Amino acid sequence: MANDYISDALIRRLPSYYRHLRELEAEGIEQISSKELGERMHQTPSQVRQDINCFGGVGRQGYGYHVPELKKRVGEILGLDHEHRMIIIGAGSIGSAVARYPSFSNEGFRTIALFDNRPEAIGRQIGDLTVQSTENLERFLDENLVDIAVLAVPKHAAQEVMDRLLAKQVAAVWNFAPTDLQYDPQRCTVVNVHLSDSLHILSYRMAQP
Amino acid sequence: MANDYISDALIRRLPSYYRHLRELEAEGIEQISSKELGERMHQTPSQVRQDINCFGGVGRQGYGYHVPELKKRVGEILGLDHEHRMIIIGAGSIGSAVARYPSFSNEGFRTIALFDNRPEAIGRQIGDLTVQSTENLERFLDENLVDIAVLAVPKHAAQEVMDRLLAKQVAAVWNFAPTDLQYDPQRCTVVNVHLSDSLHILSYRMAQP
Repeated sequence: MANDYISDALIRRLPSYYRHLRELEAEGIEQISSKELGERMHQTPSQVRQDINCFGGVGRQGYGYHVPELKKRVGEILGLDHEHRMIIIGAGSIGSAVARYPSFSNEGFRTIALFDNRPEAIGRQIGDLTVQSTENLERFLDENLVDIAVLAVPKHAAQEVMDRLLAKQVAAVWNFAPTDLQYDPQRCTVVNVHLSDSLHILSYRMAQP
Repeated sequence: MANDYISDALIRRLPSYYRHLRELEAEGIEQISSKELGERMHQTPSQVRQDINCFGGVGRQGYGYHVPELKKRVGEILGLDHEHRMIIIGAGSIGSAVARYPSFSNEGFRTIALFDNRPEAIGRQIGDLTVQSTENLERFLDENLVDIAVLAVPKHAAQEVMDRLLAKQVAAVWNFAPTDLQYDPQRCTVVNVHLSDSLHILSYRMAQP
């Protein structure tokens, strides 16, 4: 399978391919050359051709690539061709923002439950879900198939919740807590969104001449 | 100045150094060896020593590095030793979450105004700020010193707001809109938080054997 040869650098570019191809499709553009796609993505045409070769199964006609076919292929590689069932632990401002973000559900990332341990948060309605007590977490995981757990709890609570997720064999965690979680990478996939890190990089770059 | 020699890879590691040093300080740990710091950060001791050499101005005693001194130095490099005045454009769920995130203000990233163009959002209270109409944006930028603009508007509105910020010489943008903005990198620094990209990478990794 072509995916086997996808480098880390290309993995980081894949979502950008998907985003640009989705925009092209929305603009009604059916065909695109490696030169035009490269210009949009700030990549050289040869980099684009090399990347797309790695995807496998995408032909190049005389006039370029077929946008819907290429988008479909990148979506398959990214696993966007099937639904992901998400739960969110921590219904504070970040957890609520993730629950409300419309493009996630449009892409098949469906939030099926929200948990919080603060009495004032439990019972609150966010979209069409009611925030549950984190006490229900284990029972929910026993009774429901969950693909991704979104961790949006404060730093001091993150590892404890992570351990509870790992004990229930949750295999993927999207972590917003500003800490590096301890886990066995053979048993769980974790991607971090460290907002402070991103802001610190902006601050660093601002300070450069 | 030592910063001149900081590589892109090290820049990406800097916020992680800062985060771990802050945790060490909170735990009351005063001295740390490159081996211990490396274990926490999943780096080799020699990588840690090499990185810290690049920071400049940090001595290493027999027992390791002095945590508060090292944290101060990394903070200086990241520009965290002075206040940044932020405005947020787009007071939806993401913009509100950024406004409410306590650690930003604790680190000197102070939100001084929030803007939105939706009648139902204007006048709303978020923390101690009242959401203003985006019509006021130019006047506000004329009358106030703004270091960072946080762009948390929908994709279709992002470039228009960006152009208005650029026309008023805003020099740093933290972009949450799921699109690649057009701008002159000589005149503005942009760091993107593309949440969908992060979720897509998680989805990709989940699909790997």
